[in-house]
Amino acid sequence: MNLRAGRLVKGMNKDAEKYTSSLDFDKYIFEADIACNIAHTTMLAEEGIINLEIAEKILDALKKLQKEGINALNMDHSVEDIHMALENYVTKIVGPEAGFMHTAKSRNDQVATDLRLVLREKILMIQEDILLFIEDLIKLASEHTDTIIVGYTHLQHAQPTTLAHHLMAYAYNLKRDYERLKDTYKRVNINPLGSAAMTTTSFPINRETTTNILGFDNYMENSMDGVSARDFIAETIFDLSMLVTNLSKICEELILWSTHEFRLIEISNEFSSTSSIMPQKKNPDVAEIARGKTSVLYGELITILSILKSLPFTYNRDLQEITPHLWNGVNYAHETLNIVHDMIISININEERGLELAKANFATATDLADNIVKEKGIPFRTAHKIVGRVVTDALIENIAYDDIDSKFIDKISFDLTGKKLELPDSLIQDSLNPLENIKMRNIPGGPSPKMVFMSLKNLKKFIINEKKYLNNIYS
Amino acid sequence: MNLRAGRLVKGMNKDAEKYTSSLDFDKYIFEADIACNIAHTTMLAEEGIINLEIAEKILDALKKLQKEGINALNMDHSVEDIHMALENYVTKIVGPEAGFMHTAKSRNDQVATDLRLVLREKILMIQEDILLFIEDLIKLASEHTDTIIVGYTHLQHAQPTTLAHHLMAYAYNLKRDYERLKDTYKRVNINPLGSAAMTTTSFPINRETTTNILGFDNYMENSMDGVSARDFIAETIFDLSMLVTNLSKICEELILWSTHEFRLIEISNEFSSTSSIMPQKKNPDVAEIARGKTSVLYGELITILSILKSLPFTYNRDLQEITPHLWNGVNYAHETLNIVHDMIISININEERGLELAKANFATATDLADNIVKEKGIPFRTAHKIVGRVVTDALIENIAYDDIDSKFIDKISFDLTGKKLELPDSLIQDSLNPLENIKMRNIPGGPSPKMVFMSLKNLKKFIINEKKYLNNIYS
Amino acid sequence: MNLRAGRLVKGMNKDAEKYTSSLDFDKYIFEADIACNIAHTTMLAEEGIINLEIAEKILDALKKLQKEGINALNMDHSVEDIHMALENYVTKIVGPEAGFMHTAKSRNDQVATDLRLVLREKILMIQEDILLFIEDLIKLASEHTDTIIVGYTHLQHAQPTTLAHHLMAYAYNLKRDYERLKDTYKRVNINPLGSAAMTTTSFPINRETTTNILGFDNYMENSMDGVSARDFIAETIFDLSMLVTNLSKICEELILWSTHEFRLIEISNEFSSTSSIMPQKKNPDVAEIARGKTSVLYGELITILSILKSLPFTYNRDLQEITPHLWNGVNYAHETLNIVHDMIISININEERGLELAKANFATATDLADNIVKEKGIPFRTAHKIVGRVVTDALIENIAYDDIDSKFIDKISFDLTGKKLELPDSLIQDSLNPLENIKMRNIPGGPSPKMVFMSLKNLKKFIINEKKYLNNIYS
Amino acid sequence: MNLRAGRLVKGMNKDAEKYTSSLDFDKYIFEADIACNIAHTTMLAEEGIINLEIAEKILDALKKLQKEGINALNMDHSVEDIHMALENYVTKIVGPEAGFMHTAKSRNDQVATDLRLVLREKILMIQEDILLFIEDLIKLASEHTDTIIVGYTHLQHAQPTTLAHHLMAYAYNLKRDYERLKDTYKRVNINPLGSAAMTTTSFPINRETTTNILGFDNYMENSMDGVSARDFIAETIFDLSMLVTNLSKICEELILWSTHEFRLIEISNEFSSTSSIMPQKKNPDVAEIARGKTSVLYGELITILSILKSLPFTYNRDLQEITPHLWNGVNYAHETLNIVHDMIISININEERGLELAKANFATATDLADNIVKEKGIPFRTAHKIVGRVVTDALIENIAYDDIDSKFIDKISFDLTGKKLELPDSLIQDSLNPLENIKMRNIPGGPSPKMVFMSLKNLKKFIINEKKYLNNIYS
Repeated sequence: MNLRAGRLVKGMNKDAEKYTSSLDFDKYIFEADIACNIAHTTMLAEEGIINLEIAEKILDALKKLQKEGINALNMDHSVEDIHMALENYVTKIVGPEAGFMHTAKSRNDQVATDLRLVLREKILMIQEDILLFIEDLIKLASEHTDTIIVGYTHLQHAQPTTLAHHLMAYAYNLKRDYERLKDTYKRVNINPLGSAAMTTTSFPINRETTTNILGFDNYMENSMDGVSARDFIAETIFDLSMLVTNLSKICEELILWSTHEFRLIEISNEFSSTSSIMPQKKNPDVAEIARGKTSVLYGELITILSILKSLPFTYNRDLQEITPHLWNGVNYAHETLNIVHDMIISININEERGLELAKANFATATDLADNIVKEKGIPFRTAHKIVGRVVTDALIENIAYDDIDSKFIDKISFDLTGKKLELPDSLIQDSLNPLENIKMRNIPGGPSPKMVFMSLKNLKKFIINEKKYLNNIYS
Repeated sequence: MNLRAGRLVKGMNKDAEKYTSSLDFDKYIFEADIACNIAHTTMLAEEGIINLEIAEKILDALKKLQKEGINALNMDHSVEDIHMALENYVTKIVGPEAGFMHTAKSRNDQVATDLRLVLREKILMIQEDILLFIEDLIKLASEHTDTIIVGYTHLQHAQPTTLAHHLMAYAYNLKRDYERLKDTYKRVNINPLGSAAMTTTSFPINRETTTNILGFDNYMENSMDGVSARDFIAETIFDLSMLVTNLSKICEELILWSTHEFRLIEISNEFSSTSSIMPQKKNPDVAEIARGKTSVLYGELITILSILKSLPFTYNRDLQEITPHLWNGVNYAHETLNIVHDMIISININEERGLELAKANFATATDLADNIVKEKGIPFRTAHKIVGRVVTDALIENIAYDDIDSKFIDKISFDLTGKKLELPDSLIQDSLNPLENIKMRNIPGGPSPKMVFMSLKNLKKFIINEKKYLNNIYS
Repeated sequence: MNLRAGRLVKGMNKDAEKYTSSLDFDKYIFEADIACNIAHTTMLAEEGIINLEIAEKILDALKKLQKEGINALNMDHSVEDIHMALENYVTKIVGPEAGFMHTAKSRNDQVATDLRLVLREKILMIQEDILLFIEDLIKLASEHTDTIIVGYTHLQHAQPTTLAHHLMAYAYNLKRDYERLKDTYKRVNINPLGSAAMTTTSFPINRETTTNILGFDNYMENSMDGVSARDFIAETIFDLSMLVTNLSKICEELILWSTHEFRLIEISNEFSSTSSIMPQKKNPDVAEIARGKTSVLYGELITILSILKSLPFTYNRDLQEITPHLWNGVNYAHETLNIVHDMIISININEERGLELAKANFATATDLADNIVKEKGIPFRTAHKIVGRVVTDALIENIAYDDIDSKFIDKISFDLTGKKLELPDSLIQDSLNPLENIKMRNIPGGPSPKMVFMSLKNLKKFIINEKKYLNNIYS
Repeated sequence: MNLRAGRLVKGMNKDAEKYTSSLDFDKYIFEADIACNIAHTTMLAEEGIINLEIAEKILDALKKLQKEGINALNMDHSVEDIHMALENYVTKIVGPEAGFMHTAKSRNDQVATDLRLVLREKILMIQEDILLFIEDLIKLASEHTDTIIVGYTHLQHAQPTTLAHHLMAYAYNLKRDYERLKDTYKRVNINPLGSAAMTTTSFPINRETTTNILGFDNYMENSMDGVSARDFIAETIFDLSMLVTNLSKICEELILWSTHEFRLIEISNEFSSTSSIMPQKKNPDVAEIARGKTSVLYGELITILSILKSLPFTYNRDLQEITPHLWNGVNYAHETLNIVHDMIISININEERGLELAKANFATATDLADNIVKEKGIPFRTAHKIVGRVVTDALIENIAYDDIDSKFIDKISFDLTGKKLELPDSLIQDSLNPLENIKMRNIPGGPSPKMVFMSLKNLKKFIINEKKYLNNIYS
């Protein structure tokens, strides 16, 4: 029996029923829907709006369903959605009085409440997993504060740095991803229940009660907004789009670094695969799929925003089409976070290769120019011009960096400025040596081991504080 | 047993296996994958590359699988993909000699071939369904060449027209959607098989044979392109994005027209629903969901394009992530096409309301201006100015269009230009009457019944020709 | 003279120069670039890194430029970007010693700093303008707490409400848009200066000094992150995408409400236009353009995210392509905010029409069902079924809501349940009357004037607090 | 004077005027707008709808404007758009009779016509430039049919190929980009003129005349469709999105190949830049900006599609917001096409490095497996397993490919299968040698010089035919 026959004499076409059904993704809100009904029924009874005895029967049925799980529901497509399936279940046990649980409530406010209840858990889980990722990056970095690699701009060798310094850049990206989700959480954890269809109700309901029972921070202060707002979904999906974008950058580097050409790392066999026709291949499939999933989040974001665009208030069925893209987005982002986390801690680092690349290509030239400025007081641009020519000539004449001396430089300096620099050879070598070079970059945010340790310490404090914050929410 | 153990000593992590698995959407290519293997094995035998007897055993096993269907395969996540599942199946029957079917073939060219085989069928099916939709629009329009409605610009009443004329605008949109798919088909129906992993093979394979067996128009002329090209997917999804965009415009109009305020149509109960709390509501849910699904296509399009962006040649695993978005996009667009088709032919049109709106708001003012130009030879802008004032004054003084006469106009004309127009009252009335007005717009593309019939005739011819074209492909 | 000739013997191709130039949008960062150079030069002098006298000359030149404005710079395409143009300017005044201002600084950290300096101002300006918009909505709503309109779900009449209640839904949307920007501001207002090219510098710079001079809350804690992070841009553009999405909903309603069919409002002539051929038209062009601009923000968002995707660390020139989309997005959103604000306060509301629509279509049926539940204690679903039939029959028999009485209902009740309800006629009329109905919905978030006044009061407090917050930042 | 004052007493607000103005991008349609007016006026005179003498005056004024160029127009923001500016110009010369040129025409059909006139030229220009790009790729490839490089899958060495073969993959991508534009052209080059505001006109205009004068293939067969269709824009922008996506893949490879690690090419100084702080850097800025611009096209595509979504028929002002994104998209794509073309033909190829990489990493392993199958008739999977182990052991024991002999293989074979293979050492070496290997891949689409020459020949034919086609259109 269709409980909501209402005015329509002839029912919906089978195809239309399937086309408009939300059942395929309603499983996500199963538990939230029970929780929501329990809170609402409890409040109705407390406020004397419905009979206590009936309320208890309904609550018992709901708790029974909680135990039995979603399979206890009849979810074929003749049932419109999970709210109906749940009502049918309770009705079978309680009889027609089950209908009282829907007093002063509509599917419009209920689905909005369910979505928020589930999403806030997902957000917290992802927040927690970001913290765990950062924690492991801290550990990994702690072991590599002296592991020299070359840093790139434009994918060209730029300056030597350490793997730890580089990994900390990952960590700070993830920290902001965490903070965005934390800010979004404030806008998710607000209670729309009591908005009813769109204008609340004439029953004397108590919105504070359901807000407290369901653990919301507050209730939504306008009922038309309560049933139609989906910005909390768009915002979450943006946050996750940003998160996976940051992960895609990490994956890109893992893919590049594990090429034959870079050879800086080897991704563990656990996160690689072979080719059916090329037995020598070791392919970074996980990193590639993760890079691909990034685009999926962009798709979900555009889907959600362009559904919302130009929709008049309040509830329009288009809103339903947002939901599967929320859950897909959340799942893809969460999975990607954890698999990239697992993958990165499994890599083998080829430290010799790191040093070799750092030495290969005059990545320390900037510092030679800097030191000329410091030592000789000539303008930076002039020093730049001289060092530029030193590098050009060295590359043409195939001279390695540790063969560059004062004589070589002065020939060029004289040629360009009419003056010799007469730098001590030791200064030249210290400037050009990657290890010395890194130690000199002892500025907050910089790669010197001392500064990286300071950074690690700050991040550890952050982790401890945020774990406390998350624990407080859960308890 | 993992048949492709290759170099990797330790296998892939369970989570990574699941994360990178394509099994969930490989069902789409099940039949194509068999067809592809049959064609390839047949060719290998014909060219003497593999033993005839073994080939026959393999072909028998493949045909057995064809009959048994996909459930005969073991598709748990330890099996990497459907190609492996299929190979396992054949190996179980034929023994290790099953491996010969993979001579001179790679999963890279095979999956590209499979995708094209399936997609071309989907495109043809959608093309066919677009023709059926247009056909029904032609039927509906044929019955409404005299049904007057008002046409809108800026959602304001602009000019009277007929429902037939309006429906023909839908039809011509759909015609272009059809033509785009037809053009795309040419770029889909090309054979990448034989590209192998990326550089063909040293076996003397015959690409024309597999091209013919599989019914492709040609083979891809560069093997690196063969395995990496996915532009045919992006193009199809764009075509479908455009199709659903056009459908979304129809849905928007159905939603508007079935409001209490417009009341021009009633959507059949088969495509509407009721609210749980407002029994008098009749909601256009199907049209709303269709409008929402439009955004899903945009999402899929962005996902696909941004996966392709900046990918180096040739095969990268990111490409796998494109496939589910292809099938989702195809299915959503196809379903939406058919449900909007079914919905639109089920609507009830309120013809009185159409006429009422067409008369309500001086939508014929343009023609009065035109007729002043024709009759009196004064510049259009002057006529425009006079008529503009006529309308302004009539609205202020609450005068209906059929009460406007020569005297009323001349007062304004004299005021603005110093001259009277002295138009015959019959000309004024003919200009302002929606029915007469429409008949006068007897220009190709216009709303006069004569012109609409010409349009309908042209479209019928188009349908007949294209049905022949589709039949030729199928036969 | 090209100051940065470096290693490259032959310069860049003219087309390539133009293609890669940022000059067209560098004007946005002109003032910030001066501020950044002033702060950096001051710090260099304070720390004794550069000579005080030279520093003063440089600072004087920079202040001169500040006064003269951007037109004092040579900005043709042979100059690579504004940093070079500025340097050329200072060099012309100070001579080659101008080069000292670039000690320990790179364009990589400088451009990141400039972008943040400008963007934080833009964000604050938009925040302020959102507050002003909400303030005017509060004023408008205060005047319309008794103006009855019908609320819609699925664009079908759902329940009566007031214009004030509806406007408050707009206000709460905007409030969240404001809060998102406020959260984003925290991630924008962090100082990357000192990151230099990517690994800080060997000069003993003081990052706290420049952080304080430039009014940043903190400095970025990893220099590789400092030069490459652009998530603050993506986040801002998302916030603005959400803002214009919310504005697009308002515009959609203004467009609908000003149709002939709805006739609920008239948009002021100041925000409308006429047609060249249809003088009676009054088109809501501003609302339509605003709706269109919403899509522009989506485009910018996708552009920015997909540029960032898979970019390896640290600076890649692709990042430059993000900037024009930031400024476009910011400008479009800001303009749209203010024009929609101006437009909405200029509308004329047709209060009679509001009431007429609220009465027209049994929008109060829910409450009749609710009151049956309250009065008679029967389950909601049963009441729903009865009321559904009441409405169906009334529509078929063309009975207005104020002609429905106890007798009419009981015939249906008996038919469906075997029992009569025997409701008092006054209860029936109070339930169905829109004014009484709204007063009864006296739940927080609801439309009763009392509750709307509470809402208005809360919002006013919010405005006062946030104005204080903004004033504190500015001072 | 505002010629279109119509009904509105008070004009538009200054901000609103600016906000809704199209003047900033109307320059693109200046010449088309004149052409459109000339064609229309000529037809009006031919059909006797307007006075011949007046028509000639108008035509003279239009031709005068054609010569004087756009600067002759007053284009400040009080003028609504270029149609008005042009009308003002003609009116100044001809007097109020200029108004006759607007008989039976509206800005709605005129702007649609203008857009199509300009866009078809742009499409043809881009088509031509794609042909020129392919031509240069053919030339470059002709010189490199023996230049050995390694081909990648998953960015791992896969199989040796030639640079020519790889470049041909680029060419075939571009060929499809060309064909897509050619198909789109058919849907662009259709005449909407005569649709007037939306329902044609009561003047006896001749649409075939304007269609012929303006060189359209046909006229649009439904006037409501004529004024509202913008799918031709979305389709073009998709085609260009696909084009730049293909270009982005090329750019990605140029960036990778010019890293220190790959060292396969050097991008010419004309398309590179230096860093202000790192004089040794040579950055692939042009390729990076081109990669970034790809994302801009995605943005434009989403903007356009989401503007069109759910717009009711016919003209809505939102459509105006599409136009700047069309021109931006067209310009960005066109510039990017030509700059990538110029850049790629300027690269220096390091042929020794190509060979070195091709030899480095057992990329020929597949062929050894193939040859074992051919020679020994054992199943491919078994051969695969043996070769997989050969590679694993060789990598562990650091054995180069030319030191692998029959003995080495047989030890493994015996171990795995209990049998020795006893392959001739010459077969092993031929299989593993990249040069021999490529020659053996003599299958259509493959890398053998013979097959590449066939491919080049086919492409040359294509170029010749398409140049003829384009010449025919122009003449």
